[in-house]
Amino acid sequence: MPTPDLPNPAHHDIDSMLTRKFGREIANYFSGSPLNRVSFLRTDHSFISSALTHSSTSFLLFNDLAPLSVNTNKLAYVKHEDVSKFIGGNPFEKTEEEIVKGYNSSVTLPLVLFLGLDEEKKGGFEHGIYKGTPYFAVDVTPRGTVEGEARKLVESMKGKGLSFAEGRVFMGLSAPEAAIYAHARSLLDWNARNPFCGGCGQPTISINAGTKRVCPPTDFASLPTPQGGATTVLSEPRQRAACVTRKGISNLSFPRTDPTVIMAVVSHDAKRVLLGRQKRFPPHWYSTLAGFCEPAESVEEAVRREVWEESGVHLGRVVIHSTQPWPYPANLMIGAIGQALPDGEKIHLEYDPELEDAKWFDMEDVREALRVGVSGLDEPAGKGYVEGNLRLPPATAIAHQLLKAVAEGFLDVREASKI
Amino acid sequence: MPTPDLPNPAHHDIDSMLTRKFGREIANYFSGSPLNRVSFLRTDHSFISSALTHSSTSFLLFNDLAPLSVNTNKLAYVKHEDVSKFIGGNPFEKTEEEIVKGYNSSVTLPLVLFLGLDEEKKGGFEHGIYKGTPYFAVDVTPRGTVEGEARKLVESMKGKGLSFAEGRVFMGLSAPEAAIYAHARSLLDWNARNPFCGGCGQPTISINAGTKRVCPPTDFASLPTPQGGATTVLSEPRQRAACVTRKGISNLSFPRTDPTVIMAVVSHDAKRVLLGRQKRFPPHWYSTLAGFCEPAESVEEAVRREVWEESGVHLGRVVIHSTQPWPYPANLMIGAIGQALPDGEKIHLEYDPELEDAKWFDMEDVREALRVGVSGLDEPAGKGYVEGNLRLPPATAIAHQLLKAVAEGFLDVREASKI
Ligand SMILES: [Zn+2]
Ligand SMILES: [Zn+2]
Repeated sequence: MPTPDLPNPAHHDIDSMLTRKFGREIANYFSGSPLNRVSFLRTDHSFISSALTHSSTSFLLFNDLAPLSVNTNKLAYVKHEDVSKFIGGNPFEKTEEEIVKGYNSSVTLPLVLFLGLDEEKKGGFEHGIYKGTPYFAVDVTPRGTVEGEARKLVESMKGKGLSFAEGRVFMGLSAPEAAIYAHARSLLDWNARNPFCGGCGQPTISINAGTKRVCPPTDFASLPTPQGGATTVLSEPRQRAACVTRKGISNLSFPRTDPTVIMAVVSHDAKRVLLGRQKRFPPHWYSTLAGFCEPAESVEEAVRREVWEESGVHLGRVVIHSTQPWPYPANLMIGAIGQALPDGEKIHLEYDPELEDAKWFDMEDVREALRVGVSGLDEPAGKGYVEGNLRLPPATAIAHQLLKAVAEGFLDVREASKI
Repeated sequence: MPTPDLPNPAHHDIDSMLTRKFGREIANYFSGSPLNRVSFLRTDHSFISSALTHSSTSFLLFNDLAPLSVNTNKLAYVKHEDVSKFIGGNPFEKTEEEIVKGYNSSVTLPLVLFLGLDEEKKGGFEHGIYKGTPYFAVDVTPRGTVEGEARKLVESMKGKGLSFAEGRVFMGLSAPEAAIYAHARSLLDWNARNPFCGGCGQPTISINAGTKRVCPPTDFASLPTPQGGATTVLSEPRQRAACVTRKGISNLSFPRTDPTVIMAVVSHDAKRVLLGRQKRFPPHWYSTLAGFCEPAESVEEAVRREVWEESGVHLGRVVIHSTQPWPYPANLMIGAIGQALPDGEKIHLEYDPELEDAKWFDMEDVREALRVGVSGLDEPAGKGYVEGNLRLPPATAIAHQLLKAVAEGFLDVREASKI
């Protein structure tokens, strides 16, 4: 069974320090970033400016969400001098107030995202009490008024033998790189996905070093949207239509993360495990059930609802196990373990027809599959797998970690049944 | 100490059935809805149509997010006949395809939201295998082309002695009503907050019985946005600008829920508890630390980051305890318990200056405050409270439940320290 290179959470070495009552804390793939986000420094333009232009600073480049990389197991980093022309030197020289006041919707400003500081890497950067190597990501997708410069930059990187790898192929990165990649991808995607304001329909601008979008009150472009045709640049900015997001704080200004639930379900006696399969899965491949958390639903309720809707099974207790960021585009997978009610174990597929099949498996079959039947969706099963037996997701998936936890007795059924 | 009327989760009676290893599963205020959302039936317009018009069906009305209510402890429900004129009889008579094809952005369609079925209440509604009393919510805020009709409806309700209570006063509802209110409020708010498409800036339309917004490809209104001035109605719809949300599935079409972390932090020996206070709190009133989960961060990482940023304390293990929906506007509070590292307990307030103070309290003081010092922010402390001692949030807040859990020994430190 492949074991991922599980990350050490930032700032401490939890593995050697403490364990959870139920065993070690699981750090799932895509979590465990080595960077300190120092989120409160994003609005400090003196800090961000000096971090951006420091000689030690590392830049990740993304073309249409595909990261610049050496190969699918390794990201490529460039320096400020490589991107300086494209991003206009130092876009953080101006304060945010100046950037918003100078807003011109007919000009494309490349998205420059501050990721954080790697405090373990000493490259000489220091600002006040903060030390470490700064990390940024830049969206180099050719578009708008920077299309030509972006193409040049993309070509020059390809000329160095690097590539922008497409698709969801980055499951082979080391754990710290996977977390950095996920962080950058989620936020560049959110910015690219939300060029307009949901509150008023007018274009928005990125501030807070790539982590906030606001709806400016004025615009130097003569036309309200780029769709209108040829625009001219005004000498005095025009007032834009009123927008509710300019009063107080609106969640529309901040990145969106979609909480999802994913759950290993055991029978009331914990002897069997409920698994489901979608049509696109290879034969004999099953996984845990999952779904989006809805507004005004606790995670525990979402777990019970999704399990009932997809399989007809009624759950009693639900315990949250661990979580995993999933950057396609910005999900937060909340992993839980649920226990069926004794009279609620009958499977019904006629409610929400999302699954091709849902089935109870003996715990022993799950243990066997965890040993020899794990693989990615498009990979062959492991060594020792016997055709026809159960296949399961790899260790980089939280589904796998949840099944491992139940196979190892996460729920103490004896204790529960005493009540 | 006030004890809330904690809800029974839908479909089962968990309290009498099973417990968590660490004690009973906590069902926090605003969770525990008695309604089965039957989410997969929202697109079944024959089901939604017959549910909408049934004589047993209950409607909640919201005016600018204030619910129609008998008083702040009880919601008021009306019947289809009361809202029929305002919502245009049965807006679900048409299929979603017909609704999108007939889209006219110059006409305001009242938001009619399907909440679910109360399967315990038999009012005679039956549709296929589904039975129970249907619940809907309607946004009656006077606006757009229905402003006049909305005002009439609002006045007629006031004439019956009912009122639309403003503000966040609904902490006195029974647990099932609190959950129904939270569900309706979150989704009406999301619809009201997102009249435009973040992907292209054009106005959107609600489908899936109030739980999805899409960006129609055509429009019978002559002008691209209502801001443009007087519009005319076309005999053939005009094509709108292209939009990326029309290809495949986009999260922009679905309600947004913002995951937040909230955590009770104990010292490495579990003898002290870290609490913080904001300026707006009354004297001696403290609470747990909290903050938004960022993109590509696990809950465990967000807990560690927020605690470090706000207090300088470094955490080792983090265990997720329970969750609470918070409908202002649509947060999912993920409650955790964290344990400080032995050499990471020093408080620093100079990083993120969000808190006025952060402080370690002896566990005994927390226990005492849970007994006599709990209250809402604008209420007096409990009976027996001695001025100058610690004050804490009420039992309806997940902060309280987390502190109660640590006071009751949720983290087994002996077991951890054996490692
Ligand atoms: Zn706006
Ligand atoms: Zn659109």
